Amino acid sequence: MTTAAKIATRLYVDDALAAERSLGLDHGQAHFLRSVLRLTPGATLAVFNGRDGEWLAEIEGLGKGWCSLTLLEQRRAPAPEPDLWLCFAPIKRARIDFMAEKATELGCSVLQPVMTRFTAVSRVNEERLAANAREAAEQCERLTVPEVRETVSFGRLLDAWPEGRRLLVCAEWGEARPIVEALQTIRAETGGAAQPRPQPWAIMTGPEGGFAESELDALRKLPFVTPVGLGPRILRADTAALAAIACWQAVLGDGDRRPPAALAGFPLPEGD
Amino acid sequence: MTTAAKIATRLYVDDALAAERSLGLDHGQAHFLRSVLRLTPGATLAVFNGRDGEWLAEIEGLGKGWCSLTLLEQRRAPAPEPDLWLCFAPIKRARIDFMAEKATELGCSVLQPVMTRFTAVSRVNEERLAANAREAAEQCERLTVPEVRETVSFGRLLDAWPEGRRLLVCAEWGEARPIVEALQTIRAETGGAAQPRPQPWAIMTGPEGGFAESELDALRKLPFVTPVGLGPRILRADTAALAAIACWQAVLGDGDRRPPAALAGFPLPEGD
Repeated sequence: MTTAAKIATRLYVDDALAAERSLGLDHGQAHFLRSVLRLTPGATLAVFNGRDGEWLAEIEGLGKGWCSLTLLEQRRAPAPEPDLWLCFAPIKRARIDFMAEKATELGCSVLQPVMTRFTAVSRVNEERLAANAREAAEQCERLTVPEVRETVSFGRLLDAWPEGRRLLVCAEWGEARPIVEALQTIRAETGGAAQPRPQPWAIMTGPEGGFAESELDALRKLPFVTPVGLGPRILRADTAALAAIACWQAVLGDGDRRPPAALAGFPLPEGD
Repeated sequence: MTTAAKIATRLYVDDALAAERSLGLDHGQAHFLRSVLRLTPGATLAVFNGRDGEWLAEIEGLGKGWCSLTLLEQRRAPAPEPDLWLCFAPIKRARIDFMAEKATELGCSVLQPVMTRFTAVSRVNEERLAANAREAAEQCERLTVPEVRETVSFGRLLDAWPEGRRLLVCAEWGEARPIVEALQTIRAETGGAAQPRPQPWAIMTGPEGGFAESELDALRKLPFVTPVGLGPRILRADTAALAAIACWQAVLGDGDRRPPAALAGFPLPEGD
């Protein structure tokens, strides 16, 4: 296997990554490599930590619940990524898992659960969301894992809103511009994709019951908010979030970039 | 309840809909109204059949496994919808269910499973897909249900490709334009949204293993194909499909339309 080929196994780790360093994996990861993938010492995999790019690593030793790796060389250098928060009212379990997975694949940098007036879910398992995000990041070749923030109330989130971060609100009712039209106007006003650094943005979606009238009113009055529409159908909360992220990435994010050629699963050998 | 208010229950039926007609529901729907929602004669609901718009109906009688309705009046007239097929390589069960649901919410007109070279799923349950599509259409206020077609091979689908239907191919590798940029060029060339009738389009996505090199080569040579990219991350098959549909609807579809005001769940009473 050369370092240019696609590597089947890819794990997120906390430790710093540098040439010739050794590092240990956690219990779950060690179990996965040994008992699920049945790897043995000498096998290679890729690791990333969100700071030092992606590294090729070799299994030095592994046993029940432990695994040590030696780092061989950097495969990909760290690179700037879009700075896009997803602020979402929590929804039921299968759908929130799915939303975390898809928002990770689509390149969100922060997952921020927000309790709105009509949110029907009373407790958010942030650890579970973080595990979903980590797994999705491992799968989709991202160099980072989105940060899962502690759940906050709608009011508190807006009170502490960071200066300079714009907010796209998916508004089913009332005035709203079509999403791509709105984003392209903003792109033209702010100098397009030729930005030196990614601009800080966020997308906010409501719960299954929608935002309360008072919430949408409050949002519309904020200077950093752009209310947008996603067409004539009533989308589920998870669908709305994914559609909005996809459009944002295509217009203001990294939609003009391509997967690194070295990661190509394609062309696969066609003879086997 | 007035006809302008949102109606909680919405069912797809096969029968023709016209004023003062009576119709019977199938066993599952009757059970749902009687035993799950615990509705009784005199309760109202909405029905649609994909041809005659949406009608307000009143429960005339119901018993174990049967329910008869009287149609009161039309709530919404039939309206043209985007003509967008989703041609997708089948994927594993939870994800294919999810894809059918989301493609329905996002307004696809046809769901066409396609067996590609690296498709790992050997059998598609089209009936199950159709049930998912129907349920999603009932939920999202669509007036139609996407047609689920019988699974075909990649070669056969292209051999029988209908004249005049363009095809957007999500291509992870090789040359491809960013999706929104490509769609906007086409929009400008074909006269924008001011079309008398929706233009026929399709989106094609590969299986988890991607398209084979020979498949992508064949697609790129076809005059009706536009290969597009969805950014630098490797998206799962279901994510790629949803992101592409969302962008297509936003640029070439009905993304500039808003949900009918009469369907508004909002404003909900805030005092309860």
